[in-house]
Formats: sequence, C-alpha cells, structure tokens
Amino acid sequence: MASVIPAFNSSMRSDRNTYVGKRFVHVKNPYLDSMDEDILYHLDLGTKTHNLPAVFGDVKFVCVGRSPNRMKAFALFMHKELGLEEAEEDIKDICAGTDRYCMYKTGPVLTISHGMGIPSISVMLHELIKLLHHAQCCDVTIIRIGTSGGIGIAPGTVVITDIAVDSFFKPRFEQVILDNIVTRSTELHKELSEELFNCSKEIPNFRTLIGHTMCTYDFYEGQGRLDGALCSFSREKKLDYLKRAYKAGVRNIEMESTVLAAMCGLCGLKAAVVCVTLLDRLDCDQINLPHDVLVEYQQWPQLLISNFITRRLGLCD
Amino acid sequence: MASVIPAFNSSMRSDRNTYVGKRFVHVKNPYLDSMDEDILYHLDLGTKTHNLPAVFGDVKFVCVGRSPNRMKAFALFMHKELGLEEAEEDIKDICAGTDRYCMYKTGPVLTISHGMGIPSISVMLHELIKLLHHAQCCDVTIIRIGTSGGIGIAPGTVVITDIAVDSFFKPRFEQVILDNIVTRSTELHKELSEELFNCSKEIPNFRTLIGHTMCTYDFYEGQGRLDGALCSFSREKKLDYLKRAYKAGVRNIEMESTVLAAMCGLCGLKAAVVCVTLLDRLDCDQINLPHDVLVEYQQWPQLLISNFITRRLGLCD
Repeated sequence: MASVIPAFNSSMRSDRNTYVGKRFVHVKNPYLDSMDEDILYHLDLGTKTHNLPAVFGDVKFVCVGRSPNRMKAFALFMHKELGLEEAEEDIKDICAGTDRYCMYKTGPVLTISHGMGIPSISVMLHELIKLLHHAQCCDVTIIRIGTSGGIGIAPGTVVITDIAVDSFFKPRFEQVILDNIVTRSTELHKELSEELFNCSKEIPNFRTLIGHTMCTYDFYEGQGRLDGALCSFSREKKLDYLKRAYKAGVRNIEMESTVLAAMCGLCGLKAAVVCVTLLDRLDCDQINLPHDVLVEYQQWPQLLISNFITRRLGLCD
Repeated sequence: MASVIPAFNSSMRSDRNTYVGKRFVHVKNPYLDSMDEDILYHLDLGTKTHNLPAVFGDVKFVCVGRSPNRMKAFALFMHKELGLEEAEEDIKDICAGTDRYCMYKTGPVLTISHGMGIPSISVMLHELIKLLHHAQCCDVTIIRIGTSGGIGIAPGTVVITDIAVDSFFKPRFEQVILDNIVTRSTELHKELSEELFNCSKEIPNFRTLIGHTMCTYDFYEGQGRLDGALCSFSREKKLDYLKRAYKAGVRNIEMESTVLAAMCGLCGLKAAVVCVTLLDRLDCDQINLPHDVLVEYQQWPQLLISNFITRRLGLCD
C-alpha cells in the first residue's frame, strides 16, 4: 500500500491526526524534573548525552514486543509501509550501546523490544515513559504486539485485549512499592481496541476477536502447563483451570499485558495489546508449529498494526 | 593461570571432582518422561532434534547471567582459563535459532543468558533443568553472576548470597500454580557459598561478603527508587525501607535470585548467586559510573567463578 504514497512529513501528520487537543505523556514523579540529569540506564540514553526532543519529539506510535529480531523486522516493515525516503541501512538500533533492549525509529513510529515478562517490560516502560516525557511527546499510542497461548480459539487467531487480568482472572496489577502492595487498573483503551478491530476487518482472511488476556509471571506452572521441569497438578486440574479462565472471558495468555495496561493508563498513553495465538491450550502445551506457519502467525499482529498506523496517518486508500 | 595447564579432559574431571557419589538433576514432573518428544521451545532445542546426552552429558557447571554479550564474554574467558584446545571461533551460540537466550559450552561449563527478571529466568530454568535431565547430567553446580544495587556497602563489592529474600525481607518465593499460591524456600547452598567466599580470598583486592540478597519484580518502585516514571513515596520513606532491609541482613538487590534458589533447590542443583554492587542505594538511585569502572566491576564475579571452577577441576596451582 505504501508504494503509491509520498514520504511521510510532519504537516501531513498533524493535519490528519484524529486526536483532538494535545495530550502529553506525563510522569507521576515529583522528583524527576528537579534532577540535573536523568540517565535512562537500560536504554543507554540520557538527558545530558542526547537531545531527546530533537530525536524523539515527533513520536506518535510506540510498538513494543518481546524479541529484538522480530521488532527489527517490524521496524523495517513499517519503514517500507510509511514510504520514508531514508535508506533502510540507516535504520539503526538506537540502544546499540546495551543489549538489554533494542530500539528503532522510522518517522513517527518508535519500535522497542522488551524481553520476557513483567519485570523486563516494566523497566523498559519506566524509561520509555521518561523518554517521551523528556522529549515532550504528545498524543502517543502504544501497542504491544506478540504471541500468546489461546484458550478455546483456533491457533493463528489475533486477540485484541480489552482487559488484562491476572492469574485469578482479576482485572488488576499488583505493584509492590517499598513493602506495600498497590493495586492498579488494567483496562486497555476501549476506542483504540475497537479501532484496531475495525481495521482488522479490512484485511483478508484475518481471524480476530476482542477478549480478555491473562498475564502470568511464568510460562509453565503459572499457565497450567504439564511439560515444565516442575508440575504438581493433574491434567484434569489444568483443564478445569483453563476452562474457568475461558468462562471468565479469557481468550489468550501472555506475560506482559497487566503492567503495560497499568503503567500506560497512569501516564497518559493510549495502550493496546495485540497478540496472535500459537496453540489452543485446551488441546496441548507444547508449541510445535512448523517454522513457516510460526513465521506467518507472527506476522499477523504486525500487519494489523501497520495497517492501523498508515490509516491513522492518512496513508491508506 | 590456565596457560601452564594441559587441555581439559574427562578423566581429569572425574578424578578430581570433589563430589561424593552421583547426584542427578531431576525434574519433578510425572508427565515428562512419558512424552514422545520434549521441545525446549525458548532454547530452540528438543529431544528429537538434538542428541542432548552427547552434547550436554558432561556439563558440571552452569553459569547464568542477564546479558547475552556479557555471558558470551564470560564463555570466551572460561574457554581460555580452561586451556581448551578448541579454537575460540568455534564457541558458537547453541541457541542461535532464537534471540530469547544465548548459550555457550566450553568443556564442562555451560553459559547461558537469562534476560531480566523472575519470569524471564524462570522460563530458562524450566528448560535448562529439563535439558540437564534429558542429558543425564549429574553433580551440577549453577551460579548466577550479575550486577546489583548495594545497601550500605561500597560499590564494587561482590555479594555472595546466603539467602534470597523477597520485598518483605522474607526467605520465600511465591509461585502461582493455577490459581493457588505456593511458597518455596530460597536458601542457597551453604557450603558452595562458603567455598566461593574462600576462593575470593585468594584474589588480590577482592572485596566480598556473604549476605542476604533482596529480589524484586521491578527496578524502580519495587526497589524504592525516586527516579522512575512513577514515584509515590518520599525520600524519607525510601531510606527507611532500605535501612530496614539492611537491618534484616540484606546487602544487595537484584531481580532473579529467589526463583533461581527455589527451582534449583527443588531439582537437585547446587546453586549460588554472586553479584557485584554498582552503587550504594543509601546514597543514590542512578547508575552513573564511568564506563571503564562499570566494565571493571562487572568482571569481578566472572573472575571469582573462573577461579572457583578451575580450582574445582584441579587446574589451579
């Protein structure tokens, strides 16, 4: 679709943006602005070493996912879809000084890898939100794209999360602060999810639905798998648990959505989670898809997000 | 030290091993051995696609750490210290088919990266323990080497963990299994810690101590930092919390030790955690060491473990 579209430029961006008014990304930390310097240690960036507003000020979309390779592939794909003039070789890892996360920028789209699990994405989100704040970004949408285990739905289905729930099917994220537990809401942005769902209808053969996503701290015992190094429950107990999850509205399971929903909700980022399912957990535990099918499935969320972004920017027919 | 030592060979290994009797790595999962195939998905290995006993059967030491680059550097360092004949270029990433973890093998030493946080290391540990079980490994010692924030001790001090504690200073790891919470012990192997401590005394200018390590789910709010995107507590509350941690015996804070202690304890791996501190959290929150100092500090745990392994193998004077 991008081949017929001229290079992205900022006037086009502001004219065609569907947001009304500016909504800045905000930190909720009274200490931050009084700091002489803010070192974003895990991103290898900082307020004294980098001109953050110049580099990141125009960011409108942040796409995050677990794998560095997959996120690089997505950044290159977006670059092509946006029809940007810059050569592909110039899309370099902005966090090349560290191997914790990788980051690419193509026009208004920032792509970052976040590793596996709540703690890993949480460190990245703290520093990303500070980065967007220091760069004075506004009207930012953040979307996690990834893979997941499905419950009661065909592998290859894309689940757009309405609410992220914990292992007890509760819509909450429990954050330990000093030695207190604070409970935060995990609702994702309703209109954004619906917009994504509508977008998906335009893509041929795209299986998608809106549902709850369960977020666990563990891939094996925490997700009721019978194939970990440790397993203390029966097949019946596993199935009972997954069926109860299904009844509670859960359609897929992954490991990052609750904290993403909680933190972005607090800091003024409209957030969505879009994950393809690789297996139906009511049928099996092991992921044994042929490589080409796995690669194809992984591309569905990327395709949807690229479609969404090009539409938002008015680059689609 | 390795320059005067002949190439490592298996007869030397078994003769000089200080263990008495064989202690196999065991899984605690009645379903596993009845599986036709076990795909270690996140390691890109499997029982049908790889001859695990042939490749991994002689593993005696597993060294794990957060960063792929740092673990590769450690593997190359160990290769040199063990005086192995194989060319350095032949030390290849065994998990090259995935970018989740990296893995290198040099003689009886397996080196693996585990990413950031409990969920990320837990997925790796499940698959590593299954790998060691399938490969029929015995008498395996596992050591996590890494960096951490210190409490009340000079930056650059290496802390050998006796007990990993949670954010409430309790020696426990809470594992969610289906929708139950199971509490597991987080004590590390006492004699191994002491052996490591004794080893450290042989290294000039090595600052080390044995103490409790606090393991959190988060780098910012969960560790009482005032410089995250979110901060809802005062400097006084932060200091009060960290001082209470110190009083409870905590000397450093990281994000993986409780689950490592819990899982390895259950599966028959002798485990240790050896982390250097990069800052004193009673003084500051941001890591702003000059690059060369940071690199030097990161090398201390590596140096200790290489010293320990070469001693164990009888390769030291």
